[in-house]
Amino acid sequence: MSTQVYERVALIGLGLIASSMFWAMKRAGLAGEVTGYARSSETRDTARRIGLCDRVCDTAREAVADADLVVLCVPVGAMGPVMEEIAPVLKPGATVSDVGSVKRHVIDAVQPHIPEGVHFVPAHPLAGTEHSGPESGFAELFDNRWSLLVPVEGTDPEATARLRALWEGMGANVDEMDADHHDLVLAVTSHTPHLIAYTMVGVADDLRRVTDSEVIKYSAAGFRDFTRIAASDPTMWRDVFLTNKDATLEILGRFTEELFALQRAIRTGDGEHLHDYFTRTRAIRRGIIEAGQDTDAPDFGRSLKK
Amino acid sequence: MSTQVYERVALIGLGLIASSMFWAMKRAGLAGEVTGYARSSETRDTARRIGLCDRVCDTAREAVADADLVVLCVPVGAMGPVMEEIAPVLKPGATVSDVGSVKRHVIDAVQPHIPEGVHFVPAHPLAGTEHSGPESGFAELFDNRWSLLVPVEGTDPEATARLRALWEGMGANVDEMDADHHDLVLAVTSHTPHLIAYTMVGVADDLRRVTDSEVIKYSAAGFRDFTRIAASDPTMWRDVFLTNKDATLEILGRFTEELFALQRAIRTGDGEHLHDYFTRTRAIRRGIIEAGQDTDAPDFGRSLKK
Repeated sequence: MSTQVYERVALIGLGLIASSMFWAMKRAGLAGEVTGYARSSETRDTARRIGLCDRVCDTAREAVADADLVVLCVPVGAMGPVMEEIAPVLKPGATVSDVGSVKRHVIDAVQPHIPEGVHFVPAHPLAGTEHSGPESGFAELFDNRWSLLVPVEGTDPEATARLRALWEGMGANVDEMDADHHDLVLAVTSHTPHLIAYTMVGVADDLRRVTDSEVIKYSAAGFRDFTRIAASDPTMWRDVFLTNKDATLEILGRFTEELFALQRAIRTGDGEHLHDYFTRTRAIRRGIIEAGQDTDAPDFGRSLKK
Repeated sequence: MSTQVYERVALIGLGLIASSMFWAMKRAGLAGEVTGYARSSETRDTARRIGLCDRVCDTAREAVADADLVVLCVPVGAMGPVMEEIAPVLKPGATVSDVGSVKRHVIDAVQPHIPEGVHFVPAHPLAGTEHSGPESGFAELFDNRWSLLVPVEGTDPEATARLRALWEGMGANVDEMDADHHDLVLAVTSHTPHLIAYTMVGVADDLRRVTDSEVIKYSAAGFRDFTRIAASDPTMWRDVFLTNKDATLEILGRFTEELFALQRAIRTGDGEHLHDYFTRTRAIRRGIIEAGQDTDAPDFGRSLKK
């Protein structure tokens, strides 16, 4: 775990994921020098102040020059333009990767700009918090979380293996997956749940007869978890929905279909339908705990129980 | 906090809330003797084994005899029948309360059976975890959570004040609220979010092209929180939806309306609408953290960050 995997790594975009990658790479000694670039000078100043990256550069081109690995950590909608900008100065033999939540769109936007002799291995770490920005990262973010590699046709297996070693060194479990399947899986496990949480929080905010202060005070049961999800970065999520449109709309269609069936059961007083449904969903929770992706501690361990 | 509030308390139903009440009352010395009753002999055996209640009784009538406070801790749909059963043996001057998540229905079902000279003060502690049963309780469950008292017309203010002292002694903040408003507030903050979480987990389970194992492995982002909510007790939640039908259906109607508007924005590529919506919901999260009802630690402190 303490072997250097790349001599030089460039992080383009310095938010939650990039900053966590930097601390995770440092923790395990995976990279010789890590450069960083962010579009906003305020973010670059913050990065310099907190020691995020060995060298913070004022242009993306400067950051990627001589890099063995370039990781695009910008919102999905910004990947194509950034790639176009850095393409001319990439080192031959370098690998370009990304951490976007949508893969088909990123591949379509980035791949045409990849120069001959440069490898492209898209990736997506399934880890995050509701915080964003350069100060939100921490070395343990990826520990025991999954990172999905989505190699495109013709990718050098050696480049993929090296990126896998980096993610494993940062604490993640790694799987490989096809881009379209990735986008469907994420529409189910992440994108649609986020849209639903945003919607529910918006409804609560709109309701005239219940004040925001009541919603906030009495949010312990259920709603609180939605607000956490709905506090995530707006730009990132706008881009996710715009670029994973088809899969999200498909899952939303199934969701509303099922919701209407439950709504009908409530209206008609069909207690058996409700009880059966609620019993079935319990089993899935058990599976997640057994898979090590959450804690069994009541209420996420938020309570004071020792 | 260490003054005795009631000499004898009877808990009818021994699940998460009742068992937490027992440990919270013991922690602060709020009750002289606490008796308990559960319909299932297995639950009664468990309670005796773990020392839950000073005395576990084999009938509800035996448990409530001589009690100064009787707390109904059964699913909302079972409140009426239990109350009918214990009514003849209640001590004059005793108070009956409950912990049901719906208040109008409980009042309609319980009040007709309250004998002359017995007080009725409905209550609802806004605290819980996804676990249930007699072994799931712990003394700290109500600390810094809200407990809502919903006194009915003509309730003796002295009886209400005493119940308030008990809940405050168990660590809760106490507010009073009208029954119909309570049911609307809870439809927004708890009941509808639960139904939505159940639905999303059901959709994921149904989807043929994404395996349960994939859903479980890759659940870190968003979906995981839904599964926790959807793991709650099926009987309790069936009763909630059947008995808070009108408010839940009203909020569901608003929810689907808003969801369709966001769905349309995705379909038409209206990024501005999405970004504005997601920015607005962020502020609500901030309010909840400032109100002390959640932690600001990333990912609920589930991560390993020190």
